[in-house]
Amino acid sequence: MSTAAATTTAYDELVSLAREAALLGGTAGLLGWDQEVHMPRGGIAYRGRQLAQLARMRHELVTSERMAELLAVCGNDASLTGDPEGPVAVNIRELARDHERAVRLPTSLVEEEATLASEGQHTWAEARAASDFQRFRPVLERIVDLLRRKAECYGWAEGGEPWDALAEDYEPGCTAAGVAEVFTPLRSRLSAFVQELLEQGTPPSNAFNETPLPVDRQQAFVRAVTEAIGFDFGRGRLDVSTHPFCSGSHPGDVRLTTRFHEANVNDALGSTMHEAGHGIYEQGLDAAHWGTPMGNSVSLGIHESQSRMWENQVGRSAAFWRWCHPRLAEHFGDAVGHLSFDEVYGAVNIVRPDFIRVEADEATYNLHIMIRFELERAMLSGRLAVADLPEAWNAAYRDLLGIAVPDDARGCLQDIHWSMGAMGYFPTYTLGNLYAAQLFEAAGRDLGDLDAMFARGEFEPLRRWLNEHVHAHGRRHSAARLCEVATGMPLSPEPLMRHLEGKLRPIYRL
Amino acid sequence: MSTAAATTTAYDELVSLAREAALLGGTAGLLGWDQEVHMPRGGIAYRGRQLAQLARMRHELVTSERMAELLAVCGNDASLTGDPEGPVAVNIRELARDHERAVRLPTSLVEEEATLASEGQHTWAEARAASDFQRFRPVLERIVDLLRRKAECYGWAEGGEPWDALAEDYEPGCTAAGVAEVFTPLRSRLSAFVQELLEQGTPPSNAFNETPLPVDRQQAFVRAVTEAIGFDFGRGRLDVSTHPFCSGSHPGDVRLTTRFHEANVNDALGSTMHEAGHGIYEQGLDAAHWGTPMGNSVSLGIHESQSRMWENQVGRSAAFWRWCHPRLAEHFGDAVGHLSFDEVYGAVNIVRPDFIRVEADEATYNLHIMIRFELERAMLSGRLAVADLPEAWNAAYRDLLGIAVPDDARGCLQDIHWSMGAMGYFPTYTLGNLYAAQLFEAAGRDLGDLDAMFARGEFEPLRRWLNEHVHAHGRRHSAARLCEVATGMPLSPEPLMRHLEGKLRPIYRL
Repeated sequence: MSTAAATTTAYDELVSLAREAALLGGTAGLLGWDQEVHMPRGGIAYRGRQLAQLARMRHELVTSERMAELLAVCGNDASLTGDPEGPVAVNIRELARDHERAVRLPTSLVEEEATLASEGQHTWAEARAASDFQRFRPVLERIVDLLRRKAECYGWAEGGEPWDALAEDYEPGCTAAGVAEVFTPLRSRLSAFVQELLEQGTPPSNAFNETPLPVDRQQAFVRAVTEAIGFDFGRGRLDVSTHPFCSGSHPGDVRLTTRFHEANVNDALGSTMHEAGHGIYEQGLDAAHWGTPMGNSVSLGIHESQSRMWENQVGRSAAFWRWCHPRLAEHFGDAVGHLSFDEVYGAVNIVRPDFIRVEADEATYNLHIMIRFELERAMLSGRLAVADLPEAWNAAYRDLLGIAVPDDARGCLQDIHWSMGAMGYFPTYTLGNLYAAQLFEAAGRDLGDLDAMFARGEFEPLRRWLNEHVHAHGRRHSAARLCEVATGMPLSPEPLMRHLEGKLRPIYRL
Repeated sequence: MSTAAATTTAYDELVSLAREAALLGGTAGLLGWDQEVHMPRGGIAYRGRQLAQLARMRHELVTSERMAELLAVCGNDASLTGDPEGPVAVNIRELARDHERAVRLPTSLVEEEATLASEGQHTWAEARAASDFQRFRPVLERIVDLLRRKAECYGWAEGGEPWDALAEDYEPGCTAAGVAEVFTPLRSRLSAFVQELLEQGTPPSNAFNETPLPVDRQQAFVRAVTEAIGFDFGRGRLDVSTHPFCSGSHPGDVRLTTRFHEANVNDALGSTMHEAGHGIYEQGLDAAHWGTPMGNSVSLGIHESQSRMWENQVGRSAAFWRWCHPRLAEHFGDAVGHLSFDEVYGAVNIVRPDFIRVEADEATYNLHIMIRFELERAMLSGRLAVADLPEAWNAAYRDLLGIAVPDDARGCLQDIHWSMGAMGYFPTYTLGNLYAAQLFEAAGRDLGDLDAMFARGEFEPLRRWLNEHVHAHGRRHSAARLCEVATGMPLSPEPLMRHLEGKLRPIYRL
């Protein structure tokens, strides 16, 4: 056998190992989805064991000696790696990165993490329902302890901190110092802008948000919108869970969840368009590359750019509501028939500092993220004890949003992330908002009058543009580089500020 | 370390290996449940790969050299196997049996089977919807071919046939000749009895079965009944699928499915009580023995005895309807208010030869099974070509039930089993009917007036009796021996015939 044939075979075997690991990851994803959507409470301990087993098996595959050998053979073969942005070279580079990170974690820690995540979510859900932080505290202490050990295993660059080590799993290349550099000026600009809106602007009518609508009609309505913007129900589902999420294990099977409150449809619509944005990304990945980095999403920041774009740049635009406003009447009849276009469009864009991140308006949303970022960073560095979290949380909300948190359920227990062991994750939401605004401007430059398309209910051109410029690349580029390639410039806060000011000033008559 | 300590450790490791395998089996079970209940059609190929991977990994564990070594060490240690009906000896004996069977199958065949089963079910569902056997034929040919190869791997006793090798997976110790010996006299007695009912009896009113009822109310009603008979929704679920089934991976997470037709509630009630009977067995297994033979069901025949008992001995009894008849009016109001107890009780027991097995009455049900048994036996032995199946099926229905099958959907495409690669399975339904009748008589002898309990809505004594005499034993006894221990006599057709004749003669005024 010639050397070329031997390394081709090595590459095939590498891909096949990667796919074995991806299959296990996809199976774990389905079990996680089921846990949130369907599992009876009696299944919790058993589910933890199932997930720990899958995590261990996956870790054993990714860290196996065979994987190391194949990566060495393939990485040293210029005929494979010659075109550094070609699919083969990208897969080898990224699989090597995954392998190098994974080998730093002992299998026992990986199993411990999976079991603790399952237990943590369950305990969190109970503590949140009872609004009782003390019930969650012991497990959160164990989670922070585990994450600090995990960060020690990964290590971080000189001058960095434990948070950096964990964030690398979600947003490769991201550090706490780098995030702070982006966040600090953005915080001042956003705070000042919010203050201006609230003090000098004229708020739009809130009537649409105070219009109770039957949940079964809300379901039909958000499903119709989800279908219209291009989520393919032949390759996906939409279900209900406490905390909306998207779970995709293959472009052919992508699952969204949302939630409904009879009080208004706005929350369900925003959540569903958000998750549909994630789902459209997952469905847009190249199935031919499934199970390899070329068929995978690049970072959570880019993932979030897709969800936030459909939720905000599309779903809160005047153009979208030109198309959607008549649809409201079709689905809900007289209950909304008296609401004008301006009333609905104004209401979905109302700015109102409040306690709950996932219900936050576009302008204050990033302030919620900044609070979480500082708190998790402090817990991981040991500057903040878990026991002191509620107090620190409430103080931050007073300082930054000027509101008094009424209880832990609407305070530090509101988000699922920490209970799952996900720290280093929250900033990707704000990075996502920045990427979304910048990518959307670029799409508009390429495609022409997006507003006119949206007003006609044409969402396919935008979806195709995202397919081509974002989804199809898999992990070819880093997130930062993908942004430059797709938009022609490095990530900047300007598009997001332009988007917010350009939309909200007229609505607030400023 | 002393020898005793060394073998105790070996036994612990054996249990831990068995539980690893059981975890993989449980995960595959959840994926199978999801495939039938939720999976979008785009997920089919990927799901097949996931299931094949889990089947392969499970097979590798069960057939591993380490498993063989541990079984040898434990099997030769009299301190472990001294009490042959004790949990430790039972686990060693049954794990050795599983291992010895599994090593006869090459891993490639196990993977091929899992993939083909997933594809087969999908193709079957499409073919059935189109009532087009030709669409299913090629995949059924591949399934029969694979099953014949699988039977060759397992082997069968002298004088036996390929069917025996496969049936051993579902009903250990069962052979085609043995089944024929039970079935042949039963067939004559059942045929004669059905003929007598139809020709000389006075059929009860069918009005209840012709009363359309809204599906949402049917759902609430069957859920209430399922809860009343003792299925624990804290450790289980009830969903909708084309073909009702029960999937249990742990006593804490047991999932039933059923289906609803607006035309009447009888079909949904029977299906749901049937699956709930399976579920009550799964929930009744000893969680402390989870993942080992002592915490597993003994055979499909015994499993089916539990489902058929709750469906028939309970759910079609006069005593049950004394309690349930007033509940009908509570759930459905005026739609059923005019139906007397006699009309409802008669209607759920009406005997009417028809095409569909799962809708068959108790008397003709076993005739459906006998037809399938002969056909699958003939396909496996090569006496019947797959291409000739529809003709043979229709001829058997003409001969035994006296009816002309109108199309393949209501003929040889009606059941899911063969599409999943399950041949050697069908007779366990009739064995289940026989076990159910015999166990129910024994429970009545032990507990006293079951009728009076049912009429008061008290189902817990029966459930507890089954827990103690059936569920808690796991795989301690063979099915045949369990029957003798629990009822004091070997399996006999008499209790079933007594049950049918004792109930149906009065209803038919004979």
